[in-house]
Amino acid sequence: MSISNIPAGIHNFNAGPSVLPHTVFEQAAQAILDYNGSGLSILELGHRTSAFEAVMAEARSLVKALMNLDEAHEVLFLHGGATTQFMQVPMNLLDDKETAAYTDTGVWGAKAIKEAKLFGKAEVVCSSRESNYTYIPKDFAVPNDARYLHITTNNTIYGTQWQTIPHTSNVLVADMSSDILSRVLDFNRFDLIYAGAQKNIGAAGVNLVVVNRNILGRIKRPIPTIMDYRNHIREGSMLNTPPVFAVYVCLLTLRWLKAQGGVAVMEQLNNAKATLLYDTLDSLPIFRGTVNKEDRSKMNAVFVMDDPALETAFLDVCKAAGIVGIKGHRSVGGFRASMYNALSLDSVTVLTGLMKDFAQRRG
Amino acid sequence: MSISNIPAGIHNFNAGPSVLPHTVFEQAAQAILDYNGSGLSILELGHRTSAFEAVMAEARSLVKALMNLDEAHEVLFLHGGATTQFMQVPMNLLDDKETAAYTDTGVWGAKAIKEAKLFGKAEVVCSSRESNYTYIPKDFAVPNDARYLHITTNNTIYGTQWQTIPHTSNVLVADMSSDILSRVLDFNRFDLIYAGAQKNIGAAGVNLVVVNRNILGRIKRPIPTIMDYRNHIREGSMLNTPPVFAVYVCLLTLRWLKAQGGVAVMEQLNNAKATLLYDTLDSLPIFRGTVNKEDRSKMNAVFVMDDPALETAFLDVCKAAGIVGIKGHRSVGGFRASMYNALSLDSVTVLTGLMKDFAQRRG
Repeated sequence: MSISNIPAGIHNFNAGPSVLPHTVFEQAAQAILDYNGSGLSILELGHRTSAFEAVMAEARSLVKALMNLDEAHEVLFLHGGATTQFMQVPMNLLDDKETAAYTDTGVWGAKAIKEAKLFGKAEVVCSSRESNYTYIPKDFAVPNDARYLHITTNNTIYGTQWQTIPHTSNVLVADMSSDILSRVLDFNRFDLIYAGAQKNIGAAGVNLVVVNRNILGRIKRPIPTIMDYRNHIREGSMLNTPPVFAVYVCLLTLRWLKAQGGVAVMEQLNNAKATLLYDTLDSLPIFRGTVNKEDRSKMNAVFVMDDPALETAFLDVCKAAGIVGIKGHRSVGGFRASMYNALSLDSVTVLTGLMKDFAQRRG
Repeated sequence: MSISNIPAGIHNFNAGPSVLPHTVFEQAAQAILDYNGSGLSILELGHRTSAFEAVMAEARSLVKALMNLDEAHEVLFLHGGATTQFMQVPMNLLDDKETAAYTDTGVWGAKAIKEAKLFGKAEVVCSSRESNYTYIPKDFAVPNDARYLHITTNNTIYGTQWQTIPHTSNVLVADMSSDILSRVLDFNRFDLIYAGAQKNIGAAGVNLVVVNRNILGRIKRPIPTIMDYRNHIREGSMLNTPPVFAVYVCLLTLRWLKAQGGVAVMEQLNNAKATLLYDTLDSLPIFRGTVNKEDRSKMNAVFVMDDPALETAFLDVCKAAGIVGIKGHRSVGGFRASMYNALSLDSVTVLTGLMKDFAQRRG
């Protein structure tokens, strides 16, 4: 289960864009010089060629298989990032007079709420904002007539994650940008899933969207051609020139993920990494986790020290050891260790070793 | 002025995604393995790092310099392609009751018109649709109160190009996807220019947008955050995670363009290529250009033969000689030779050689 994919000496804990398997980098670089022996770079390959159509078809099919999607769930690769989807979701699903239910569990959820209000009513059914988003609300009700319920399954900045997906009779929409394909879920319970690729599935510049086609086409608003999911379904994500290379990097990452054993194996690896990190954190009083233990994210571990001078000193220690991207987001401070699929257990072992050593010397 | 940038034996006449300088492929592949000796791939580099901020700043600054832009013109790199801009332009510039003037000179212009109608009134001030877009209309009037005039400077599918940019007192908007940076223009005369990168400036997955900031903020419609050009100006194209690698490929291509001598040198090279191709075409009765001579595009030369069997035979000849992407678009048939900046004169010489030889043997 140990995966060696880190360039010698570097441990990339970036929150996104973030670490990808080293084999993906090697194959992507090769494809830029010569795609499959064609004499052409993947960057100059026409998207209407059988070569690229095969890339798109395989990427789609791998997502379907890895997520165990049923026949009604369509897989799209679209330009943009999750921020684009904050707009595109209500544009497609929410009529002017209708209400959508949103959970306010972090900055990204709050941004999604802001965009929804441009298209209809956005009712915030729960919020942990008053505590700087340190927990996932457990007790809330969703109006029966809400057109959909929107959740952010993992909150990258704060380090919280929905451990159980809320049961709802409403259409369920999820921003899974920072934990897609990292754990086993019944993905068919979701009617729409979107994820910027740059954390678990590829490089920045493409969105994965999984949508139950039965929820589409129910609103009165005319939708711009490029924003209407139905057009992208019909055209197989080739309504316009797709982000060819970004889709190809997704394909390489998905192939790697399948070769590792799929989502269940990723979940085991991610559990092992998170357990090691949080157990270390809880054993060292000099460090302090910032969120409710039961809501801790397995993707992004956020922790602080009470003395800013010590934080600076530990950042220096990390830097000297080749650890990248460990500095916390400005809205929380301290540290954030992002442990996406492609981050190895070895990298977490290096980090926790430094934490223990630092605590012994300075604690 | 001869530029050798073609992998041995391949001549890529793709309409887009299309040929880029070979040095760009080499540098891009290297950056995927190790960006500037950082030990990190460009694909795992955080966009909020000084390393990527420098990429974005240099790309922006090169566009400003290569286009001689004045202080009011802002340079943006945005997710998506021209199809995204068909929607984004009227969303930002056209109020519900206002009229925009559109020129209907090809499929892409027509698609832009369709999207504008979702936001306001789109008045088609000229059209060559009745002749399957074989010419650029010369004589038309633009209503004084039109919020803007939209033109497609080069029509990729049909092979026509505006040789002179219409003089207008209206705000001038141009889709330059297929001829940006290929010829010297007074780019400051345009208030908004957009271009999918995948022809002259990079790989698919990013739009270059040049906008005069003084035309923004004049409409009443609330604009979704990710669609509002003003937000992208304020955030330096980093409102959300940008398509990092696609922007980097633009930077490499822009550096190459500057090193070649800039837009004026590209124009000379493009003139030389187009002259060679069209002179050959006109000298061989077996081939026939499909558009008005005075409107011929220097980027995309479209031509046919009267005998479909001969067309098939010539396609085979091209294929055997390593020529890629020469088959015409289905709406015109025959052949299309796309000759973007990075296509060498050598490649055109190979093609015209084959044309002459074929005409001699089969004409």
